[in-house]
Amino acid sequence: MSDAVRIAGLSAFPDVQPGDDLAALIVAGAARQGEAPDPFAQRPVIVVAQKIVSLAEGAVVDLAQVQPSGTAREYAGRLGKDARLVEVILQNTRRVVRLERDVLIVETQHGLICANAGVDQSNVPGQDCVTVLPRDPDASAALLRAAIGRLCGNQCPVIISDTFGRPWRLGLVNVAIGVAGLAPLRDYRGRRDRYGRPLHSTVIALADELAAAAGLMMDKREGAPVALLYGVKVAPGDGSAKQLQRPPADDLFR
Amino acid sequence: MSDAVRIAGLSAFPDVQPGDDLAALIVAGAARQGEAPDPFAQRPVIVVAQKIVSLAEGAVVDLAQVQPSGTAREYAGRLGKDARLVEVILQNTRRVVRLERDVLIVETQHGLICANAGVDQSNVPGQDCVTVLPRDPDASAALLRAAIGRLCGNQCPVIISDTFGRPWRLGLVNVAIGVAGLAPLRDYRGRRDRYGRPLHSTVIALADELAAAAGLMMDKREGAPVALLYGVKVAPGDGSAKQLQRPPADDLFR
Repeated sequence: MSDAVRIAGLSAFPDVQPGDDLAALIVAGAARQGEAPDPFAQRPVIVVAQKIVSLAEGAVVDLAQVQPSGTAREYAGRLGKDARLVEVILQNTRRVVRLERDVLIVETQHGLICANAGVDQSNVPGQDCVTVLPRDPDASAALLRAAIGRLCGNQCPVIISDTFGRPWRLGLVNVAIGVAGLAPLRDYRGRRDRYGRPLHSTVIALADELAAAAGLMMDKREGAPVALLYGVKVAPGDGSAKQLQRPPADDLFR
Repeated sequence: MSDAVRIAGLSAFPDVQPGDDLAALIVAGAARQGEAPDPFAQRPVIVVAQKIVSLAEGAVVDLAQVQPSGTAREYAGRLGKDARLVEVILQNTRRVVRLERDVLIVETQHGLICANAGVDQSNVPGQDCVTVLPRDPDASAALLRAAIGRLCGNQCPVIISDTFGRPWRLGLVNVAIGVAGLAPLRDYRGRRDRYGRPLHSTVIALADELAAAAGLMMDKREGAPVALLYGVKVAPGDGSAKQLQRPPADDLFR
């Protein structure tokens, strides 16, 4: 059998509530699913959907408690959205990138550019509750990595993923918004191609490809909010999802 | 063992030359690698790097034969690139999206928005030769699918992938530029979340996630230009990579 990557989705994952011990749920989920004998011995890359990280951290807002500002009400009218939802989005926004038709694209306080600042109502318990992104997704990934390490004895790379749209392509893809224990970019510059010529400008967004691969198991409805990726060659070490953000000076579309 | 996706990269793939029978090389490569007894019986999604499709189709230009236009010479000066290379890029361009510093982003004749119209020198044999994108990547995927089907008796979905940059994120990711035998978008709209609420605007770019997952095995240097993805739930059927292109009217960044 050839070298291969294997992606196991932890399906039948329990509903996550604020305060839950997500590391314990992930370790138990892997064991329950028969990823055995030790699911973490090979140090799989653990990709965790943002939604359950936000839920566990209590990054949840009850819209019934939100008083929309005048700006939120104005935008909501233009967008055809709930003004309380727009208020929560704006509270998590550093800069509005586009406000057109029914689309609100912003730069979040983390520097991520995405629709609705990542504020989302799907798969959130509570009548009118929404999740916001974790305050510091890299820190969330590092905490989760350490907690899983304490439980299972292995330090595995952790990625927190969310589904983002793209300007010129339809459909969402999972990308890495938080990273711990791996270098998110794989840099081929200075290496040579198969004909001995130097490779130029070839930096692969490894963490985003890992997040997208995990996305294959993350069905929105049936719920595999965690995936374990075995057999991936990663460069271990400190890394941050911030390394995936294009610096403003290099943003040709600002 | 849980449901899982398995990604096998066909490494040690031979150098591809114009006129080569790529389907035969893929079938032989899977057999050689011990993907057995019948590597195609489970109908894996076959992801093929654009580079070897272009090479096999002879979509190769020798820069020694290229006469750059005045425009190509002017752009080349601004970009610090070879004017003959810029000429080839412009011949494959429908619209220049950005020309800044050392970056030339264009809309190709296919409607793809990417750097350098996908024209690339890495891993191309010949002193001064470059590959251009296949003229019709969907048609290339369909031909490859049919040819592999004739050889192995199974109709497998085929994706042709290339590495594209993103406006706000660093690093390249593999995306689908040609598709045959699967629906490239997975549409959850109208379905309900785990709390019974309808899912809004949740369309996943499945073909792009498949391409990115395959990218994990597609090392630029060591050469696994083909990956077989087992265990993916795909909706079979006719599909086109054009379905992944955002229509110009919905492009907020035009």
